[in-house]
Amino acid sequence: MKKPRWVIEKEQARKAAASETVWLFGLHAVRDALLNPRREKLRLMVTRNAAAKLEDAIASSGLVPEVVDPRKFSAPLDPASVHQGAAMEVKPLDWGPLEDVAVGAETPRLLLLDRVSDPHNVGAILRSAEVLGASAVIGTRHHSAPETGALAKAASGALERQPYLRVRNLSDTIVSLQNMGYIVLGLDGDAEETIEATLKDQSTRPVALVLGSEGPGLREKTKLTCDALVRIDAARGFGSLNVSNAAAIALYASKTTEAGG
Amino acid sequence: MKKPRWVIEKEQARKAAASETVWLFGLHAVRDALLNPRREKLRLMVTRNAAAKLEDAIASSGLVPEVVDPRKFSAPLDPASVHQGAAMEVKPLDWGPLEDVAVGAETPRLLLLDRVSDPHNVGAILRSAEVLGASAVIGTRHHSAPETGALAKAASGALERQPYLRVRNLSDTIVSLQNMGYIVLGLDGDAEETIEATLKDQSTRPVALVLGSEGPGLREKTKLTCDALVRIDAARGFGSLNVSNAAAIALYASKTTEAGG
Repeated sequence: MKKPRWVIEKEQARKAAASETVWLFGLHAVRDALLNPRREKLRLMVTRNAAAKLEDAIASSGLVPEVVDPRKFSAPLDPASVHQGAAMEVKPLDWGPLEDVAVGAETPRLLLLDRVSDPHNVGAILRSAEVLGASAVIGTRHHSAPETGALAKAASGALERQPYLRVRNLSDTIVSLQNMGYIVLGLDGDAEETIEATLKDQSTRPVALVLGSEGPGLREKTKLTCDALVRIDAARGFGSLNVSNAAAIALYASKTTEAGG
Repeated sequence: MKKPRWVIEKEQARKAAASETVWLFGLHAVRDALLNPRREKLRLMVTRNAAAKLEDAIASSGLVPEVVDPRKFSAPLDPASVHQGAAMEVKPLDWGPLEDVAVGAETPRLLLLDRVSDPHNVGAILRSAEVLGASAVIGTRHHSAPETGALAKAASGALERQPYLRVRNLSDTIVSLQNMGYIVLGLDGDAEETIEATLKDQSTRPVALVLGSEGPGLREKTKLTCDALVRIDAARGFGSLNVSNAAAIALYASKTTEAGG
């Protein structure tokens, strides 16, 4: 029996963590990585067709591509990956310490992910975080989706621009953020307070929103460390929102509340 | 070379449209369909293990399951499908005419999808629509994701409860909704007005929100038929949001605006 896709992706994530390199794929993801000066690029594999489409980005990167026959595209990818003839081996990005991303913005917003392991969800969350102006997305080092090609594809370029940190201990990170002046809110469908009401009189405070994975939700330790547990107003049973949709709404709600609502 | 997953899914969608039956898979999707009296069920294939987990749902459905060996699970599914030992052939749901879903709720909200073809996105949109209390999701008969197992899985049960209609001509549908008193807003990242400002003084009107597919966005005809084009406030470049995240935020924004913001 063929391995299901999620098993393959899990194995790739494990391998990537061990070797500390990642294969990005797809024209969009590869172009954005080529154009990112902070991205350490190791190896670029392209078809003649893809090379033409990426010509400017390849030139500006200074990388010498390996041009390959489309029928012999041998980059080590899941065969179901829609690579569009472009794959690049890179090092994961290093966004530096928490302080560097958490301090500086005028009214910073952070998203904290408590063991969200699906790369498609984390990719979509990075995308929304970028569009809605979050300062960073912070996951756990273990049980969170690492940087992979599938995550980069779902992030549609945002992986290159939106800081994504993975920390050893999420509760310690929450405490650090609280010490920096953050109010840390855990999203929980069973909470009594709404995110809107809780943030109403906190318009100038930095805010960190913590989301758990679908199913298990936030861990007990995480819940106990947050300043408050909140739910999204107007949502009947927040637990049934896809985690990336919940993250997008929560981030949006925290922005509009800030605007004076 | 193995067919990429999206090709397989497209072929399945075509076959499903032709035969007008759908194979649902996964414990969650199969259970919710078993428990839905409106769902016409044709054939249930389960492993002994899955049969035990679905025992009550199977009993209440009155369907006689075919119990199969897990190593010979022969339901016609994409091999990458995480079926968890349960698959069921069903007829697509019939939600009746537009009027039946568009009229009745107190301040109804509809989501209109202009050729959104990705089943994972449409599934996630159905899920958010249900949680945020939309009356229905309406797609185009052609170039929109039909009911498939992949869509049902992404919808996580919402497919059984959230009306999903597919209409022949979206512009005609928009005109029909306008005649019923709806204000129809097309989401467009380049719009000058925001959804929040446009809905501010329209708190009692029914609202339909139209979203285009990622990349092409709304078709010209669709744009011309909408009452207004709007963007999401606080989003830098709405175009880069994943379509399901954009739908979730737009629906949430239309609800909170209604609440008096």
